[in-house]
Amino acid sequence: MPRFALKIDYHGGPFSGWQRQSHAPSVQQAVEEALRRLQPDAPGIGAAGRTDAGVHATGQVAHCDLVRDWEPFRLSEALNYHLKPAPIAITACAPVADDWHARFSAIERRYLFRLIARRAPLTHERGLAWRVPHPLDLTPMQEACAHLLGRHDFTTFRASECQADSPVKTLDEARVEAVPLEVGVEYRFTFRARSFLHNQIRSFVGTLERVGAGAWTPDDLRAALEARERSRCGPVCPPDGLYLTGVGYPDDPFG
Amino acid sequence: MPRFALKIDYHGGPFSGWQRQSHAPSVQQAVEEALRRLQPDAPGIGAAGRTDAGVHATGQVAHCDLVRDWEPFRLSEALNYHLKPAPIAITACAPVADDWHARFSAIERRYLFRLIARRAPLTHERGLAWRVPHPLDLTPMQEACAHLLGRHDFTTFRASECQADSPVKTLDEARVEAVPLEVGVEYRFTFRARSFLHNQIRSFVGTLERVGAGAWTPDDLRAALEARERSRCGPVCPPDGLYLTGVGYPDDPFG
Repeated sequence: MPRFALKIDYHGGPFSGWQRQSHAPSVQQAVEEALRRLQPDAPGIGAAGRTDAGVHATGQVAHCDLVRDWEPFRLSEALNYHLKPAPIAITACAPVADDWHARFSAIERRYLFRLIARRAPLTHERGLAWRVPHPLDLTPMQEACAHLLGRHDFTTFRASECQADSPVKTLDEARVEAVPLEVGVEYRFTFRARSFLHNQIRSFVGTLERVGAGAWTPDDLRAALEARERSRCGPVCPPDGLYLTGVGYPDDPFG
Repeated sequence: MPRFALKIDYHGGPFSGWQRQSHAPSVQQAVEEALRRLQPDAPGIGAAGRTDAGVHATGQVAHCDLVRDWEPFRLSEALNYHLKPAPIAITACAPVADDWHARFSAIERRYLFRLIARRAPLTHERGLAWRVPHPLDLTPMQEACAHLLGRHDFTTFRASECQADSPVKTLDEARVEAVPLEVGVEYRFTFRARSFLHNQIRSFVGTLERVGAGAWTPDDLRAALEARERSRCGPVCPPDGLYLTGVGYPDDPFG
């Protein structure tokens, strides 16, 4: 049975997250329903990152098994046709080996977080970024990001309901840059790791924002990390600004 | 009676345009209703650009007359409070002279048009850009833009219902740049003139897209301009990608 890798772009706003829920719409359910328009008994699918409610993706990856040996471009076109009008799009499709797995073959996840500092409410970016009404300072946020880099016990930045076996993870990238906007400034945080803990990035950004606002110093963040206590985390920020931008594999199926 | 200039940012999607209509919601009506929460008899307001249904603004300018001598920042905060949850925000407010007029004092209007070329439907940018499913070629679009620059009779690119006295306008800027996206390419068109004809920019971009797709040459566009015939215009494109980004005045009231 041919297996296909799908690259998926979605607006997380209308969904309870990637994962299928019994009483709420999910991205997984929408993609599975589109697959079943092509093959009524198509099996369920799994994805590399189980994004939470309201979290977006520009480069989520899942895989599906179908009976017919679809031409990959035609498969993505057919799925996009059936996904309408949901804000979900298949942006790439590639055949993969039978033992290739979107989640277990992945060796890297990349996330972007968009934080906009401006006094006025958002209009065009509403639901697409987290707004704070006060100015932020870039340099201390950059210093604080540097403390997060590398291998740490991230208990402080892990949701209490996190199901990972261990709180120890290695962060390969944690940086922030400032982009001036027509009104205000956008801070773009980039995080890259083999895998993340539940709520890890929203815990990072909520705490980093406190550093940018001057309420915490970069050393306060380092001390909170070293304490390995959930109660030492800053506020967990909203999901609106979070995007799963890409997943890395030993051999990129999308070339 | 103190007069204030307001800089206004809005998502055009939910509105029938800037101008008040009897049977459809407009941006003007929403801002006037917010003003009347502060002063029940506040007079109606006028704006520099009467944007059409679905057209966005990041830098629309209007003026209002109020009895009380508001501190400008407090006025913008009060208006933003009453504008919620509409996707409209006052991003600047400044006192102006009694004879200052948002529309008649303006000497320049600036517009941005966002055109995204990508095969898959839009997700996050839906309603915020015009998508075409085929690739476009930048260089011929840039050549064609150059033909539009300067003083011309723009009858070809003017809606039949346009009420301007003359079809002759001077275009001070007409350019396009390509920005690579995660998936696809965004073409950002910038236009600047003292004033524009009705549907002029959507007529430009609809025709320029034909040039980028290879259906028209840059010389075809020049010949259409020189013909001064509405029937020679290319298709008028949708409003989703159009933004009024700024208005110029001899003395910028917002500093």
